[in-house]
Amino acid sequence: MTTGEDSLGPRAEADSPAAQANEGAAVRDAVDAALRDFFASRRPVVAGVGAEFAEAAELLEEFVLRGGKRMRPLFAWTGWLCAGGDATGDRADAMLRACSALELVQACALIHDDFIDSSDTRRGHPTVHVDVARRHRAVGWTGDSDHFGAGVAVLLGDLALAWADDMLRESGLPSDAHARISPMWSAMRTEVLGGQLLDVITESRGDESFDAAMRVNRFKTAAYTVERPLQLGASAADADAEMLDVFGGLGIDLGIAFQLRDDLLGVFGDPAVTGKPSGDDLREGKRTVLLALALAEADSADPDSAALLRSSIGTDLTHAQVAGLREMISGLGAVDEVERMIAELTDRAHAALDGSGATGDGALLLRSMITAAAHRRL
Amino acid sequence: MTTGEDSLGPRAEADSPAAQANEGAAVRDAVDAALRDFFASRRPVVAGVGAEFAEAAELLEEFVLRGGKRMRPLFAWTGWLCAGGDATGDRADAMLRACSALELVQACALIHDDFIDSSDTRRGHPTVHVDVARRHRAVGWTGDSDHFGAGVAVLLGDLALAWADDMLRESGLPSDAHARISPMWSAMRTEVLGGQLLDVITESRGDESFDAAMRVNRFKTAAYTVERPLQLGASAADADAEMLDVFGGLGIDLGIAFQLRDDLLGVFGDPAVTGKPSGDDLREGKRTVLLALALAEADSADPDSAALLRSSIGTDLTHAQVAGLREMISGLGAVDEVERMIAELTDRAHAALDGSGATGDGALLLRSMITAAAHRRL
Repeated sequence: MTTGEDSLGPRAEADSPAAQANEGAAVRDAVDAALRDFFASRRPVVAGVGAEFAEAAELLEEFVLRGGKRMRPLFAWTGWLCAGGDATGDRADAMLRACSALELVQACALIHDDFIDSSDTRRGHPTVHVDVARRHRAVGWTGDSDHFGAGVAVLLGDLALAWADDMLRESGLPSDAHARISPMWSAMRTEVLGGQLLDVITESRGDESFDAAMRVNRFKTAAYTVERPLQLGASAADADAEMLDVFGGLGIDLGIAFQLRDDLLGVFGDPAVTGKPSGDDLREGKRTVLLALALAEADSADPDSAALLRSSIGTDLTHAQVAGLREMISGLGAVDEVERMIAELTDRAHAALDGSGATGDGALLLRSMITAAAHRRL
Repeated sequence: MTTGEDSLGPRAEADSPAAQANEGAAVRDAVDAALRDFFASRRPVVAGVGAEFAEAAELLEEFVLRGGKRMRPLFAWTGWLCAGGDATGDRADAMLRACSALELVQACALIHDDFIDSSDTRRGHPTVHVDVARRHRAVGWTGDSDHFGAGVAVLLGDLALAWADDMLRESGLPSDAHARISPMWSAMRTEVLGGQLLDVITESRGDESFDAAMRVNRFKTAAYTVERPLQLGASAADADAEMLDVFGGLGIDLGIAFQLRDDLLGVFGDPAVTGKPSGDDLREGKRTVLLALALAEADSADPDSAALLRSSIGTDLTHAQVAGLREMISGLGAVDEVERMIAELTDRAHAALDGSGATGDGALLLRSMITAAAHRRL
């Protein structure tokens, strides 16, 4: 772990937008370094079990270091700074390691979710279960390759989840900080698993309702990605109950705003910017708030559109079909309604931040993330 | 948690065999009570996510409370007593909660293993993925029922693994004890996942070797079931490095002896005693040390028997076929060889215990468990 003043960038200009971006990038670099160090620390025990296990653990390391936005560590670090945690030095290094542990929880969530959703690609690479199944097929081992891929993906996700706890426990945070963050860490993992379960059940019973989609957003995204990481960071820095409370409400609002923005980008995003095929969510048939609103409006105002929407989503749509569905969803007012919700949620988050007493770099960073949720393009 | 002097049974007669059994039973009761309390403590957060999640968490609770031998908590408790940990009082209660957390790791291992092995039943009930798939089919939800069952089983296993950490962290052990047990807890989970992975790979590449079977036994069973739990309990009670070292070697020997005994019972066990169909391991085609020894001997001395063994195991055998294979495996000397290994391992474990300096109830309990591995019938 080599974080510290250098890797966190120059502090003097922390109020300029460029410095905000730098700050985010510096945290991401520090998270990558902490994860790399952690994986290195596991190598002796892994190698002791066997070369096959070492190879599998390398797959996990590659998956984790392939990136992502490091949103959860960023929010935890932001919470820490907001509550007056050190920006540099030993305690900051320990906190960055603790923040990085969130990426291992996320690795488990993604690897297992990809199997559950039968997704073939993630971040431009084959998903773990697909990759492992291909290797099984290539070497000509016995048994069903897909089932082998699924089994190894389950075990590697488990390993990531177990290691998340190890990384947090070995972060170097003092025991009083561990005691304070324990309830947040615990709630976060239970809530995200609950959210994943609700998601799977919602889809299986064909629940198209706004409420069901919002409940999944609440637990699978908002609590897990924003609320609990913010609270975890703040409580590590010994925030008072009032600040934790503010971060609770703000985290939910901001987390839902992020998800709603994702939903819009999943249908209307520019592939050149998002890196995903245009209209991906429509092809996958994702049950979003955007879709729930469109279907509810179509049911009452335009039954033909409702029928077409229902029969189209989740199928292998052409570009022209995607364009037509986009126009329909816009025409039904669902996009305006989602934009209105995002504006309301982010306005409320800004106001909560203003009243929170959070100051300095943490407050600046959090403000920039609220603004990003309101306007980001990827 | 209501453990204490009463629930641990009368201490005065702790050196009689009946009292040993009572002690084991009392620890099992205390573990069940601790697990029940823990599940109750999760209900508010689970209910907050939704009724569907509460229902799924109940499935997990039923699975965990349906029992098993509670071997890992028993060994951890034994390690604690051996190193002079309190048998009653607040610290004992905290330690029993910490021991019970091992059963949640085990719940994850079993639920995920059952999916990976495509097992239909466990402890006389449908396995979790099979049970959930049936429910999906019964209510007529959309999508593939088996894949839904697999997905929910993956998430419930994850929940058990996350909750294992929560239960340990919230056990009430003092922070210095937590610091001491952290390396054992960490190694144990990494090793069992490594062992599971080796198991899956060994089977997929059709590796019939003695070495491969022993390596799986070493990590999937011995480290996970005996060595690390013993060390975890002993280190919680602040055992010195020498005792931890003795428990390392003794735990591996005893754990492998237990697995070898299981292998014998899986082929020769009396269904009336084991509760499993006769010759179950042969029908499942389990790659055991017993089978590896039989195949190695047959390859050099009796190629026809080797061919018959290879073509028979893993198929739906009749009773007569099972009887024939049993006779063949005995005739090849594999049973005598496994019994010889068990005797050597348990003799060495007894000697290590004698030299360990462990005394009192802990040593008595451990001695009875070594004897059980040497001679048990289920």
